[in-house]
Parts: sequence; C-alpha cells; structure tokens
Amino acid sequence: MRFDIITLFPEMFKPVMGASIIGRAQERNLIELNFYNIRDFAKNKHRQVDDYPYGGGSGMVLMPQPLFDCFDHIREVHGGTLPKVVYFSPQGDVFNQNMAQSMTKEDELILLCGHYEGIDQRVIDAFVDIELSIGDYILTGGELAAMVFIDCLSRLIPGVLGNPDATIEESFSDNLLEYPQYTRPAVYRGYKVPDVLLSGNHKEIAKWRRKESLEKTLIKRPDLLADAELSSEDRQLLEMIEE
Amino acid sequence: MRFDIITLFPEMFKPVMGASIIGRAQERNLIELNFYNIRDFAKNKHRQVDDYPYGGGSGMVLMPQPLFDCFDHIREVHGGTLPKVVYFSPQGDVFNQNMAQSMTKEDELILLCGHYEGIDQRVIDAFVDIELSIGDYILTGGELAAMVFIDCLSRLIPGVLGNPDATIEESFSDNLLEYPQYTRPAVYRGYKVPDVLLSGNHKEIAKWRRKESLEKTLIKRPDLLADAELSSEDRQLLEMIEE
Repeated sequence: MRFDIITLFPEMFKPVMGASIIGRAQERNLIELNFYNIRDFAKNKHRQVDDYPYGGGSGMVLMPQPLFDCFDHIREVHGGTLPKVVYFSPQGDVFNQNMAQSMTKEDELILLCGHYEGIDQRVIDAFVDIELSIGDYILTGGELAAMVFIDCLSRLIPGVLGNPDATIEESFSDNLLEYPQYTRPAVYRGYKVPDVLLSGNHKEIAKWRRKESLEKTLIKRPDLLADAELSSEDRQLLEMIEE
Repeated sequence: MRFDIITLFPEMFKPVMGASIIGRAQERNLIELNFYNIRDFAKNKHRQVDDYPYGGGSGMVLMPQPLFDCFDHIREVHGGTLPKVVYFSPQGDVFNQNMAQSMTKEDELILLCGHYEGIDQRVIDAFVDIELSIGDYILTGGELAAMVFIDCLSRLIPGVLGNPDATIEESFSDNLLEYPQYTRPAVYRGYKVPDVLLSGNHKEIAKWRRKESLEKTLIKRPDLLADAELSSEDRQLLEMIEE
C-alpha cells in the first residue's frame, strides 16, 4: 500500500515510521511512504504558504496556491488521476478500526496534513474525498493524525505483523475490549497470575478470557456491545456478570 | 508541565516533539520531556523485556520486572512519590478535549507506552492511575498515543501557542465543529471566497461563522450538540437550518 503524504513537516515522520513494525514493513516493501513538502510548491519569494484568514480571527490559514499546485504535481506522478485524498481535521468523521479495515482495500491514498489554524476551504472542496478525525481533541497539526492512520492501516496489511492471528484476537476485532494479559513469573513481588491461566485447561482459559473481555466491555464501554457479535454463551456470561 | 515517558522507543519522540510548536515550547521550558527506556531496566543477559503470554495466544507481553524497576527508579527521581501514571491502551477511557483541559492542572505526569500484545496486568494494577485510549482503533504501540496526548495538552498550556485566542475560537472549545476558513486570494482558479467574509461587516461575519459551525455540527456530529452551550440565538439558527 502506498501513502503520498502532503505536509509542512516531512522530517517528523521518518523516525516514527522508520522504527519497529512499520519500519520493517517499509523495508519489505509492504508499505511505501512518499512525501510532498507544501513549502516546495510556494511561488512567492519568501516561500510563504499561509496567510491571515478572511473575516478576521486568530491563527493562519494555508493558502490555496501551493496546495492546488501540489495536487497537480501528484496527479501527474500518478499518470493523470488522483488516488483518494484523506484530510485530517477535527471536523472529520471519527476514525475507527472498521474504517481502517475497509480502507486497506485501497492501493494508494493521499494524506493531507493541515497545520496552523486550518486549510483554505477551497482546497478541501476541490480535492478531499474523506475528512477524518482521529478523536475529539485538537492537535497542533495533522501530522500525528496521519501517523496514527498509517500505523493503524499498515498493521492490517497481510505480512506486516509476524503472526496473522495477532490482528484477529485483539481488541475491537470483535468489538470487545481485550482480556488481561500476563507473562512470567507466576508470582512477582507478591502479585499472582490468575490460577486458571496456569491450569493448562484450554477450554477454561478461553472461557475466563471471554468473560473478562465481556465484563471489561460492559463496565467501561457498554456502547461497543451493541455492535458486538455475541453468541448465546456470551449472553449467558453477560447475564452472570450483570448479577 | 513535565512528562516522564516510559517507552521502548524514545528515539521515536524527538523529531516529532522537537518540531514546530511543541519544539518551541520545550526550548522555552514550558514543557519538559524525560524518557525512560524500558530495556535499560532489563536484568537478564539478553536485555529481554517481553515473554509469551500465560494461557497461550499470539504476541508477546511486557514482563513485570523491568517495568516495576523502572517505576521504582522514577519514584526515586521524584523524591519518593510517583506523579499520576497514564497508560495508553484501547481498553482505556476515550480521550477528549475536556479531559485534556482538566489534565493540564497536573504539574507532572508519567506516560506508559505499551508495545507488542500488551503489558502484564500486574503492572497496570500496581501503578496505573488513568488508562486512556486515543480512539477506537489499534496501533502498533503506545508511542503515537503518547505523542498525541502530549501535543494536545501542550498547546493548552498558557504561552505555548502564540495567540491565546487560538485555543478559545477553535473546534471543541464550545463543543461545535469549526466554520470554514479562507485566505487570499478572493478568487483562485474560479473558486470564490464567500461574499460575507469580504464585506467588512463583523457582525454579519460572526453570524455566518456561527451558522456554519452549527450546521456542520448538526449534519456531521449531532452527538456534540447535546453538550454544547447554545444561546437562544443559536437555537433560532439551528431551527432555520433544520428547516
């Protein structure tokens, strides 16, 4: 999967996206990141890319010209057609794991990172296909949102994670929160691992984990249960927990 | 505000947190970041920090010993008491702007970044005060979540943003999405800036912006309106929009 990233700060991405799992995914050509620095498309002599907002107000707004020219350039790179454009802003649809899964069907995506107060609305109207928010909070720019997006999508691409089971067993894959995890030693500073996990009884372990997942979801995120696929056994467990 | 960050990948943070607004906030000592590499606290000869989960399953789990020892060390650094500990995981409470605002009251926070399949639950039980999720999606580690958290809190600290008005006027500060922004030129490639913004009539501009905010929020995020502070004029505008 190829990501074309439009940003004022390409240097922010490399150390994050170069480390660990996402770094290895690039080395193995499972994902490819290309950067376009908005400032490279500025035509004025100070390479200015932002200006005051019409109608007054604080902050600066990214000007149309450098971004229109940047999109023209990327269209040429892609042989005359633009891949889908994702723009990150608090005004967007709230990103979640189901969206991530469905977006991995794209071969290429363009990611537009805003900064300062915002981007001239005409750029959004002319080019943006999907406006996304990674959560109900404000960031200094779209770069972290784009990294979150790339990280989340990349690990769903076959081969990126060592173990294909890892994406199936975890939180949200079935809309439940994850059960607690423990590793050795069985007792550390007096804190014990639950007996069932040491029992070797796989059926009991699976049942305990499912119950923990259901209980945690019921207590912390009951909103997720509405969309969860629950078996009749799950419903029995939930009734037990509720009592 | 001081952030003590526990991570396997401290090198991921510096280029992101060193750039732009957050970088300048550090230079001006408005925020301070300290890093503790979990691997530095590993006692075994291969500096191993993770192990297989009890009860089976894919992925690796961060072991208790390096993290318990790391927290002991940080407690010493802080003169015997631990600041509040935030752990990032999809199981946490969903982070939002109101939480960010209230957390800026802390002088110091410890941020624990998980990786791999998860962290031994005993570490969470023993040390974590606040478990936070930045959204309903899965990341390869907690580092990006921690960066999002730091970025979001930092820009709320007085002096970090050049213009103090900037944090007041924007999205979510009053639970509404932001109105569209435009900058020069008034016409670009045939795309025009709305006439009202060029009118110089500040009252009309303010009214147009409020209407745009209300309309965008009503269409895209009606859930936000329930908690928004609406004036009687806002309610009139909403009625007009709904018709």
